[in-house]
Amino acid sequence: MKNWSHAVSVFLAGVLALSAPAKADPEFAVAVARVYHKENGARIVREFADLLSLPNDAADSANINANAAAIAAQFADRGFRMELLRHGNAPPLIYGRREVRGAKRTIAIYVHYDGQPTEDANWTHPPFQPVLYTDAIANGGRRLAMPADGARLNPDWRLYARSAADDKAPIAALLAALDALKTVSLDLSSNIVLVFDGEEERGSPNLDDYLLKHKNKFRDVDLWLFCDGPTHQSGRPQLVFGVRGVTGMDVTIYGPDRGLHSGHYGNWAPGPGWRLARLLASMKGENDRVLIDGFYDSGEKLNVGDYAAIAEMPDVDEALRVEFGLAATEAGNASLAERIMLPALNLKGLESAEVGDQARNVIPPSATASIGVRLVKGNDPQAMLDLVEAHIRKEGYHIVREEPDAAIRRTYPLIAKVTREGGYRAVRTPLDAPGIDDLVTSLRLAAGDNLILNPGLGGTLPLYVFEDISDAPIVILPIANFDNNQHAADENIRLGNLFYGIEAYAAVLTME
Amino acid sequence: MKNWSHAVSVFLAGVLALSAPAKADPEFAVAVARVYHKENGARIVREFADLLSLPNDAADSANINANAAAIAAQFADRGFRMELLRHGNAPPLIYGRREVRGAKRTIAIYVHYDGQPTEDANWTHPPFQPVLYTDAIANGGRRLAMPADGARLNPDWRLYARSAADDKAPIAALLAALDALKTVSLDLSSNIVLVFDGEEERGSPNLDDYLLKHKNKFRDVDLWLFCDGPTHQSGRPQLVFGVRGVTGMDVTIYGPDRGLHSGHYGNWAPGPGWRLARLLASMKGENDRVLIDGFYDSGEKLNVGDYAAIAEMPDVDEALRVEFGLAATEAGNASLAERIMLPALNLKGLESAEVGDQARNVIPPSATASIGVRLVKGNDPQAMLDLVEAHIRKEGYHIVREEPDAAIRRTYPLIAKVTREGGYRAVRTPLDAPGIDDLVTSLRLAAGDNLILNPGLGGTLPLYVFEDISDAPIVILPIANFDNNQHAADENIRLGNLFYGIEAYAAVLTME
Repeated sequence: MKNWSHAVSVFLAGVLALSAPAKADPEFAVAVARVYHKENGARIVREFADLLSLPNDAADSANINANAAAIAAQFADRGFRMELLRHGNAPPLIYGRREVRGAKRTIAIYVHYDGQPTEDANWTHPPFQPVLYTDAIANGGRRLAMPADGARLNPDWRLYARSAADDKAPIAALLAALDALKTVSLDLSSNIVLVFDGEEERGSPNLDDYLLKHKNKFRDVDLWLFCDGPTHQSGRPQLVFGVRGVTGMDVTIYGPDRGLHSGHYGNWAPGPGWRLARLLASMKGENDRVLIDGFYDSGEKLNVGDYAAIAEMPDVDEALRVEFGLAATEAGNASLAERIMLPALNLKGLESAEVGDQARNVIPPSATASIGVRLVKGNDPQAMLDLVEAHIRKEGYHIVREEPDAAIRRTYPLIAKVTREGGYRAVRTPLDAPGIDDLVTSLRLAAGDNLILNPGLGGTLPLYVFEDISDAPIVILPIANFDNNQHAADENIRLGNLFYGIEAYAAVLTME
Repeated sequence: MKNWSHAVSVFLAGVLALSAPAKADPEFAVAVARVYHKENGARIVREFADLLSLPNDAADSANINANAAAIAAQFADRGFRMELLRHGNAPPLIYGRREVRGAKRTIAIYVHYDGQPTEDANWTHPPFQPVLYTDAIANGGRRLAMPADGARLNPDWRLYARSAADDKAPIAALLAALDALKTVSLDLSSNIVLVFDGEEERGSPNLDDYLLKHKNKFRDVDLWLFCDGPTHQSGRPQLVFGVRGVTGMDVTIYGPDRGLHSGHYGNWAPGPGWRLARLLASMKGENDRVLIDGFYDSGEKLNVGDYAAIAEMPDVDEALRVEFGLAATEAGNASLAERIMLPALNLKGLESAEVGDQARNVIPPSATASIGVRLVKGNDPQAMLDLVEAHIRKEGYHIVREEPDAAIRRTYPLIAKVTREGGYRAVRTPLDAPGIDDLVTSLRLAAGDNLILNPGLGGTLPLYVFEDISDAPIVILPIANFDNNQHAADENIRLGNLFYGIEAYAAVLTME
């Protein structure tokens, strides 16, 4: 392999000397990309770290705009006609297009450039000060200085920062792939459209408006490529043909209208925490089955082919249990691939007064649960929330939308304030949709036989809004390591996964 | 009344002119105290506000020492021999003694000068910047400037600050009572011992050590007077003959060893919030009965006399439900006075990741409940926690004392970390104990026929440590308004209650 890549190096030098454009060829493109990231890895990582040092919470308007400007400038330098589409004060949608003479098709690439909000205190290093480690910190990785040009990089090294994986890694990989192809003046085979979302982690509240308003820009798209999420937990690369949808609600249960001394009133004033606990316990049983009426009814049933694809997925469950320190998983260790095909009721957070050293001897006035719902194809987000509300009512609660006033408090012994989120539908693309075969063939050049064709990812992407403006198939190409701490503290990208991304994009950009 | 108090005023002027010490007389003492606080109320309030402006969280060593020094200086000025007793780095126990020639007895007065920790963001004004209002803020009170000398004060006005009620009000009232008696050179009838605790809100962890070490200082105490807690919810003054004990524990339930993406792993990785909810729901039933085996077994049964005293207590339940915005209270509106005679299981707080805008789409690694237990006479604090732990084990949990390591996580599907608090036993003094009659007779001069003899307060005071060093009866004399927001934000004292305290102390200091 070493000799082979040396041979390509020598060949590249020759091609560069010629400086003549070469016809798109994915096999050659992948080889070029591989040599390119080996020789330029240090610079690629440093430039990526620069991008990651821009804070990117969508709610932080100044910084999110700075991200958009920086990213658009990079693609403009690489032959894209860039626009920052605007919608009120929302983060801009980064749009770009590169025309290719004799293009075989138009591929739209979706990425999001915003990141989850950060709780800095939980991070080993500040989330926007990228730091390199020899391995995952949790695995005992040691801190490294940023590499100098020519340094040899180990694929197991990790770069830590918010959005290192979710979802700036595809941006860095795509830029490097374009640079790699440029070194040998290799043609692209498709027109490329860029659609970079700036508020995905806030639920992409304006994405549908953006797309509908600019529908014409996407008229000729033949394939939507979604670049987000992790590779398979087995470590193997994957193409994914579906995602779960998502929605959720906050539920607040009320006790007395102020904190009451737990000695004077404990055993008399109703504790909101007990009520919330009973309500939650009524929603999900000991066998981890959701007990809300109708919760499993609207999901599309799987067919024999779906079950076959699930069965071919690598069995990573026991390895994941070891990885995450779990003696057992839900529903008696039922397989992850199967569980993802069911809607999920998640408890994202609980809050009532304080615990630990901060706890006071008070009966708190309220207790809140943040409930997330993951949806499968067929589930309507608001209809699923209706079911949860019907359950809360069945448990005897009066539901309010605002803080209850004195009259409501005096009327109803059980009051629940429900604050609904919006939501995304789930999406699934048939494995035999047009153009998928060519994509899979090209991608196997980067991914090898390892490539998994995954019928459904557990995570959520705003795919349904693309269904609304286009009939073209939607496929997800993730590159991040699965243990990237996505959405949590110490998010990171494994360098080997970043490099795989460069090769994968080289293959896509030049696919037959 | 106005004419009468004018008459006392004129009389006082005459007595002051004479400047001869007068023999202790509680009836006269109460009249003097009443005139004194009418004429000097503005100064009393301002000086109290000065004391309240000293932050007094026991964990804040510099400030708690500053409180002790300031308070000791005030009593030294009033004829007390003061000492700040020391125990390691703990807040000092303020000890003082004033000898009285021909004293009929020795009365020890307990107060605590520390306050509950404050969450400043929840307060209308910063907790250590005392502010005066025309009424409770919650009742639409308007803010007032601090009164100038000679200003007429309305008894319904409220002074807001941490510890305005709990428990610096008795300090301010006692100082004013001593000053009032001094204006007419009225003798005290008893030696007075001061015992001011600096860490009651942290569970008085060193009080027993202090008392045992200085046992001799309390050898001749004939009556322990505990000055803490609120007057009865009816607004009527009370003497209280017992308190509930208290203990508690934090329980942390574990999920995956890091936050996991709720899309990729929701429905597969066990959510710690669901487990905690089920565990809590198993502890307390829908009828608000605690379901932990043995929870109600060790409490001393009430006798006919106890039930009679409870039956004579004013029925304030419905008024309290209105006050606190409750449509119903526990166990089908069972009476507060009865409920207080049972041990209580309280849920002080819940915490798991975040809720509301801060919630993230993560399966959190843990969920914690802060559980408080209020005890009745006969309950041993640690034995009660043993029962709670036995219940947790019965629900299938493996109990740990530290964060579980990887091996423990992989061995036990259900893990609960239990962190126990210490605790106080409950105490109850018989209503016919020696000296109680004289106290009641004197106090009725300040309190009138309104005085309630309450067999048991819901709150907790560290009375049991005094039981350990003395056989003298222990009685509680509360002065604060019941709606003082004790332990919560916007704590306050109603000025009428502060003035009642001055009169009550004048009666106690001169009792037959």
